[in-house]
Amino acid sequence: MDEFTLIERIRSRVATRPDVMLGIGDDAALLTMPTGQMLAVSTDTLNEGVHFAATARCQDVGFKALAVSLSDLAAMAAEPAWATLSLSLPIADAEWLDGFFDGFLELAVQHRLSLVGGDTTCGPLSIGVTVHGFVPPGQALCRDAACVGDDIWVTGTLGDAAAGLALQRDPEALGEIGEDQRTWLLSRLHRPTPRLDFGLALRGLAHAAIDVSDGLLADLGHVLRASALGAELELGQLPTSEALSAAVDDDTRRWTLQTAGGDDYELCFTAPKDSEPTIRAAAESCALRLSCIGRIVSAPGLRLTVPTGRPWAPSRLGYQHFVDELT
Amino acid sequence: MDEFTLIERIRSRVATRPDVMLGIGDDAALLTMPTGQMLAVSTDTLNEGVHFAATARCQDVGFKALAVSLSDLAAMAAEPAWATLSLSLPIADAEWLDGFFDGFLELAVQHRLSLVGGDTTCGPLSIGVTVHGFVPPGQALCRDAACVGDDIWVTGTLGDAAAGLALQRDPEALGEIGEDQRTWLLSRLHRPTPRLDFGLALRGLAHAAIDVSDGLLADLGHVLRASALGAELELGQLPTSEALSAAVDDDTRRWTLQTAGGDDYELCFTAPKDSEPTIRAAAESCALRLSCIGRIVSAPGLRLTVPTGRPWAPSRLGYQHFVDELT
Repeated sequence: MDEFTLIERIRSRVATRPDVMLGIGDDAALLTMPTGQMLAVSTDTLNEGVHFAATARCQDVGFKALAVSLSDLAAMAAEPAWATLSLSLPIADAEWLDGFFDGFLELAVQHRLSLVGGDTTCGPLSIGVTVHGFVPPGQALCRDAACVGDDIWVTGTLGDAAAGLALQRDPEALGEIGEDQRTWLLSRLHRPTPRLDFGLALRGLAHAAIDVSDGLLADLGHVLRASALGAELELGQLPTSEALSAAVDDDTRRWTLQTAGGDDYELCFTAPKDSEPTIRAAAESCALRLSCIGRIVSAPGLRLTVPTGRPWAPSRLGYQHFVDELT
Repeated sequence: MDEFTLIERIRSRVATRPDVMLGIGDDAALLTMPTGQMLAVSTDTLNEGVHFAATARCQDVGFKALAVSLSDLAAMAAEPAWATLSLSLPIADAEWLDGFFDGFLELAVQHRLSLVGGDTTCGPLSIGVTVHGFVPPGQALCRDAACVGDDIWVTGTLGDAAAGLALQRDPEALGEIGEDQRTWLLSRLHRPTPRLDFGLALRGLAHAAIDVSDGLLADLGHVLRASALGAELELGQLPTSEALSAAVDDDTRRWTLQTAGGDDYELCFTAPKDSEPTIRAAAESCALRLSCIGRIVSAPGLRLTVPTGRPWAPSRLGYQHFVDELT
């Protein structure tokens, strides 16, 4: 299959939107912006052997490549619209590509997102996605907007993807664990759910927000640095899935997965105390678990306490490219 | 250097624009669109060993990574505004990165383009650039807009980058050639000039346009297929640099470089006969060489003739990923 057959194959599968004047197949896509909105743009790249294993299912790779970018739009309270895709492939394998687009487009359709362009090149397997969304001026949730006294919230559960990664590397890593729980932890790693609806619901309610991609402490750390503030977190409040509870009964090991493990793609955000009832109602209407895990304080740094109230010093802060290695 | 030091290093060097509400450093960039314009978006990826050699200078890699994307905006008659950059690096080498951004930002500043976001990952060296520009509705130059009787024009000279690539692979490939000519041919390969000003000048004058990235016949072929038309080209009219003339005196070899060689990033466009004086004046005001190389006809396909009028059958049509290999 040559490059142009490949592009035609992609184009034939992509749904369009009325604001796409010209999609895949010219030198550039031509898009109409709605009035009164800002454009939110975010880029993420997944490389084989770094962000996903060589054994990963092509459907999952396609799904996750879009999910991690959409998660950034969720963390800005932006509504997704368009994506471009840059695909480097060692060979143009039709079966792999069809599976990849099954996963990518499954998620795109869910969020009315249109793939409007991109490029395909020959090279080591790598997927770059740039997503575009809309947010009205003044309503985006930025990292620098946390305030002293804000509650710190997190959606869903934490540590599942890190446990899934441990299981992927070594099926025996977590001892005895049921097949359903194993499947669920792996699905959290391979098919993260970008919290887009809830992100939109947080407009006007939350102050700062970020998605948990590198690990809670690393990502919350970005918010604290940008806001020049600190935080107190209660480890006993970290939301834990049944599967993770069953798989990891050692508290320290579980807290490490939950605070330093990346790839959960949950939203971590701060909001004033008096928003609590509205925020809880919004989470309920999105059928989303929501946990208050701490509060913003003026003293810089992160202080963690175990359920007895004693301080806890994490052994690591999260995933860092060029420092950590996939082992 | 960790990922965040690296991002800070990049951010400190980037010029901003008043329409960038939030640039590098949050989950997404926030951008204000001017009213009455469409957004033009294009993505290109350069992989080491495919699009540039492992020995390429980092400054040239940075320059070219942006140039090839900007060339797509030029071919749409769009005005550049913002870019995102996805950088996969085997190691975070500060010297390489500083050089890369020297080249990238040199071109960005020339065109008032702001780097607004992106990501850095660990992996085989690969650079993905997504550029964003503006074009008023109805003024973009699309591939499907060629008309029967249109003249076919090309900017600058053709075949230089292909000759540069031949020289890079084998310094003796083109026989005796002066040092200045060698340098110039290599600079055409490493530092292509996106024809942005002239692209803007073509609004309302040209019909279809494309940039010559895969080779004249391949790229003009896209215009012909999209427009469901054919073309007649006169090889004697192909614009030839002094360096290429000196380096390659065999007509067939030179025509092959000029029709099938990629990476020139000149504009190839079609325009009605009566636009000729205005188009020539526009080229002159951009100090740009401009050549009429043929015309659009209704019969599909490409017919090439040598200066004596005899037909010429090209031995290859241009660069295709997954078919050709860099050898």
